[in-house]
Amino acid sequence: MAPRAPFVPPEILLLGPGPSPVSPRVLAALAAPPLGHLDADFVRLMDRVQEDLRTVFGTRNRFTLPISATGSAGMETCMVNLLEPGDRAVIGVHGVFGERMKDLAVRQGAEVVEVRSEYGRPLDVERMAAAIAAGPTQLVGFVHAETSTGVLMPPEEIVAAARRAGALTVLDCVTSLGGTEVALDTWGVDAAYSGTQKCLSVPPGLAPLSFSDAAMQRAAHRARKAPSWYLDVNLLGGYWGGGRVYHHTAPVNMVYALATGLDEVLEEGLTARFARHRAIARALVRGLEPLGLQPLVPEACRTPMVTAISVPDGVDEAAVRRHLRAAHAIEIGGGLGALKGRIWRVGLMGHGATMTSVLRVLAGLADALRAQGRRVDAAEAMRAAQA
Amino acid sequence: MAPRAPFVPPEILLLGPGPSPVSPRVLAALAAPPLGHLDADFVRLMDRVQEDLRTVFGTRNRFTLPISATGSAGMETCMVNLLEPGDRAVIGVHGVFGERMKDLAVRQGAEVVEVRSEYGRPLDVERMAAAIAAGPTQLVGFVHAETSTGVLMPPEEIVAAARRAGALTVLDCVTSLGGTEVALDTWGVDAAYSGTQKCLSVPPGLAPLSFSDAAMQRAAHRARKAPSWYLDVNLLGGYWGGGRVYHHTAPVNMVYALATGLDEVLEEGLTARFARHRAIARALVRGLEPLGLQPLVPEACRTPMVTAISVPDGVDEAAVRRHLRAAHAIEIGGGLGALKGRIWRVGLMGHGATMTSVLRVLAGLADALRAQGRRVDAAEAMRAAQA
Repeated sequence: MAPRAPFVPPEILLLGPGPSPVSPRVLAALAAPPLGHLDADFVRLMDRVQEDLRTVFGTRNRFTLPISATGSAGMETCMVNLLEPGDRAVIGVHGVFGERMKDLAVRQGAEVVEVRSEYGRPLDVERMAAAIAAGPTQLVGFVHAETSTGVLMPPEEIVAAARRAGALTVLDCVTSLGGTEVALDTWGVDAAYSGTQKCLSVPPGLAPLSFSDAAMQRAAHRARKAPSWYLDVNLLGGYWGGGRVYHHTAPVNMVYALATGLDEVLEEGLTARFARHRAIARALVRGLEPLGLQPLVPEACRTPMVTAISVPDGVDEAAVRRHLRAAHAIEIGGGLGALKGRIWRVGLMGHGATMTSVLRVLAGLADALRAQGRRVDAAEAMRAAQA
Repeated sequence: MAPRAPFVPPEILLLGPGPSPVSPRVLAALAAPPLGHLDADFVRLMDRVQEDLRTVFGTRNRFTLPISATGSAGMETCMVNLLEPGDRAVIGVHGVFGERMKDLAVRQGAEVVEVRSEYGRPLDVERMAAAIAAGPTQLVGFVHAETSTGVLMPPEEIVAAARRAGALTVLDCVTSLGGTEVALDTWGVDAAYSGTQKCLSVPPGLAPLSFSDAAMQRAAHRARKAPSWYLDVNLLGGYWGGGRVYHHTAPVNMVYALATGLDEVLEEGLTARFARHRAIARALVRGLEPLGLQPLVPEACRTPMVTAISVPDGVDEAAVRRHLRAAHAIEIGGGLGALKGRIWRVGLMGHGATMTSVLRVLAGLADALRAQGRRVDAAEAMRAAQA
């Protein structure tokens, strides 16, 4: 038959809550010819990826690997392995990803106690600690950097409360990993997961995950097998660990890309990378006021990777995003759940966390707001960002 | 820090049971810059992928899409959505992937009736039908082309027996899709899944899947939610269907690659592609006898995509594979489960189903067998293959 027209995606600057921009070097790695999933050269690459993931997660956990699915499957891996019917789980909910964690815990038949905070504010540590202490608790879960609101939740105190109660902790590091400090061993977190498409700047498709020995013990001694075969950490350990027992066919090319993305992260150095994310986020925030815009989240608990911006009264939220995409080739995100229509989300993550990104998105926002009849000082926004 | 040495995979001819070789065109598509997972251009590509998958699955099922994980997650999607605790499931087991299906059904709390056949032989249709009729049955599952043995199991009669009993059928099309006829609607199959890394010749990472309306109804009316959030078809339908509701972040670049792989499949045409797979598999089999080798599976039930070759007495199975990899840059597979050490598996799938592949693997096998002191007629094997 006739050749079909190829799909050529437009070049869009990805400044939404993810996926983030990917470097040419990572894209080139993705396009290398696949090896077999049990090939000796691929197995060596798996070892390297595991070791590099331990570095970015701040852990020596042996079981540290990328789950062969996108970030939410990392959350699911924690819940299907660590919860059994009747377990008591305390879940902190301060955004859409906390809601998802709660949903997943309910699906496992757990007795779920949720501790809610307003979207855009951090969790209340005392209420979390009280809920944990109120009954024998098997699992405590919450989100480190809430992608839906841009709030960074320091995990130390909640993790300490969970440990006092003998509960395992699950920490969502989807947006934090590679963009701000993650220190699982120092904090005492038992299970954590992330996605490749945020601050690691790799396309979506893998969920880096780490389980402590205590978490692995819990999974190994369940009363009955986890409902998931694909995400069963006992089986995954047989493939990624020493035995190299065939489990599933790993997404080989995505592992190439992740390995190369981790090369870029570690060549830059974690400390320098975190500083870059902070500096670039501050530059964006400085540029907002001349445009008549305000961040949703107070500075003290704002995460640098994703900045939520309140939509001013009278501005058409979706129209601004459409204008940015159509006229400026920029993607930014809208709000989710309770914040739908009320915020924009600008992600400055990984390869996209640059002053060029800040200036382009400020210029685009200024133009989109002017198109809606707002008075904005675009030149002052640029100056403020670079001040 | 210092730049790290890049990982450059060697060029290996992938003639194992998967992953299969990937064309430069598909690799180039994989390396295009990502779009957002809700971007309008990406959404159009999703529609195209869904329509092309319907064509290769032989169905008009609305719910036809790639699951964002590798092939086994397709199997898991069927089981976690279509089974509830206490359901009766009849699973045909004639290889490792039937065993996996049984394991997954057990994990859902189903009452599982297994109907076993010897590895390397097809399922016994009468025993399957009798097991289905022996009690109220909710689900019947089996494998179309058993990747672990190379047996092709014609599905019509078992599916008809399941329909008479009012049971849904689940068909594993991991190795068959794109390499031999799959006709879900003609056969009356309710749920089927595949992987991208077999006869579609796309890297591993996605699981094409199709559910009939009856299967979707079953999933929609469960007594309780599926244990999996990531694979819940009710939620996936909201993202891939008309609503485009955010669910998870799709592996965007893998979808580019799948779209391009489907372009190649449909440009060739399904009929021509199936004929090519049959002709190439026959060429391989003709070349085996001069090497003193025999296929495991009788011709009548042999699948063209994967040929299992019995290891002759006195030959070191693993040493032959190591020799092929080291001296000829070819990957072939060994046996799994009951067939471990007893067979090699040669996959001639998709982009790898060529006469060049046949000649290279025959030459490699001849050389590896000679290295073990066997007398083989390599020249005659080449002649026979091309006869």
